[in-house]
Amino acid sequence: MTEAEIAKERERLADLALEIAARRGEETTRAALVSETRLTRARIETIFPDEEDLFDATVERWFDPEIAMMEDVLASDLPVNRKFYEFIARRFVRRREEYARDPGLYRMLCELGAARYERVRSFVDLADHYLCEIIAQAQADGHFAGLEIEDARSLISQMVSCYTMPDMVPLLEDRLTEDKLGSIVDTLFAGLSAQNGGARGTRDLRAA
Amino acid sequence: MTEAEIAKERERLADLALEIAARRGEETTRAALVSETRLTRARIETIFPDEEDLFDATVERWFDPEIAMMEDVLASDLPVNRKFYEFIARRFVRRREEYARDPGLYRMLCELGAARYERVRSFVDLADHYLCEIIAQAQADGHFAGLEIEDARSLISQMVSCYTMPDMVPLLEDRLTEDKLGSIVDTLFAGLSAQNGGARGTRDLRAA
Repeated sequence: MTEAEIAKERERLADLALEIAARRGEETTRAALVSETRLTRARIETIFPDEEDLFDATVERWFDPEIAMMEDVLASDLPVNRKFYEFIARRFVRRREEYARDPGLYRMLCELGAARYERVRSFVDLADHYLCEIIAQAQADGHFAGLEIEDARSLISQMVSCYTMPDMVPLLEDRLTEDKLGSIVDTLFAGLSAQNGGARGTRDLRAA
Repeated sequence: MTEAEIAKERERLADLALEIAARRGEETTRAALVSETRLTRARIETIFPDEEDLFDATVERWFDPEIAMMEDVLASDLPVNRKFYEFIARRFVRRREEYARDPGLYRMLCELGAARYERVRSFVDLADHYLCEIIAQAQADGHFAGLEIEDARSLISQMVSCYTMPDMVPLLEDRLTEDKLGSIVDTLFAGLSAQNGGARGTRDLRAA
């Protein structure tokens, strides 16, 4: 097999592994792939030398569409607040669709991702990196005044976490909407800065 | 036993049930309470007629200090943005301390609460009710202009969820800080309103 053939077969088998996982309700092993295909164990092991390689291939298949979405948004000519909204919303809508299509599989993938977060980490880091690019563009337009990019990223990540953490889709379901996400992004652009508004304060409370 | 004696014994046994759960790493049953005390099964069943009554008693013991915290804040003479911050921060700090004291027990309590959310629901509803009181006060001061209280509550709950959802403490650990919570509350007071800032937009993206 050429490298291109191996890469293509790897994608096909990763998709098949997801289908099998959906049907069996558990993570697909290389042994399960052998029993569900006409391929030999040797052939499967050429494509996935370690068990983790199969897991990594399915993680890539899961995240590839999200990477494309983020890159499309970054490459667009939208105003920066629109970019910011689309950057979060497109991935949220896609996950909501995936959850609706097969809730059991979606929950299982969330659990697998949490249990082996180190295999997912590079995708989360890439999303953070792209988010920082949007924050830098917003700051060039005068938003998020006075904040270090990393501080802005951390605060923003926490405020939009309901729309970016995969587990929130099954947990909050209909309480998550594009309208609310739009309002949250508007709030960030209208209100987030390094200015101390005094919420944390210094004086302790006493009875009125 | 008088009603007051039963109520006091109920609290004592609920505290003991939490201690036993921490030691054994599993939910405490009435049978476990019998085997760990000198009390008879009949006596335990007088105090906890159903298994769920023991669970409910431990849930109350968990939430009672949080209810006191919320009521102290509501009864204070702080400015409304300070009230808002303290309303979230005091419970967050208490949970962070509980988690630090016994991470395994904390995680187990999160799991039990999620699995039997209907027994916890009334406490969540009470916290939402108090939050609406603070929002109404804030709106009287001109904040969150034009929003229905329920819409404001939903948006705010989502934006501060990292500091109110118990599971976030073990998940995010040091990434959650009082400083960041203060900045988030400042952002809400500076930026949240019914005004459409255009993040959601109408025009779709096209390449730049």
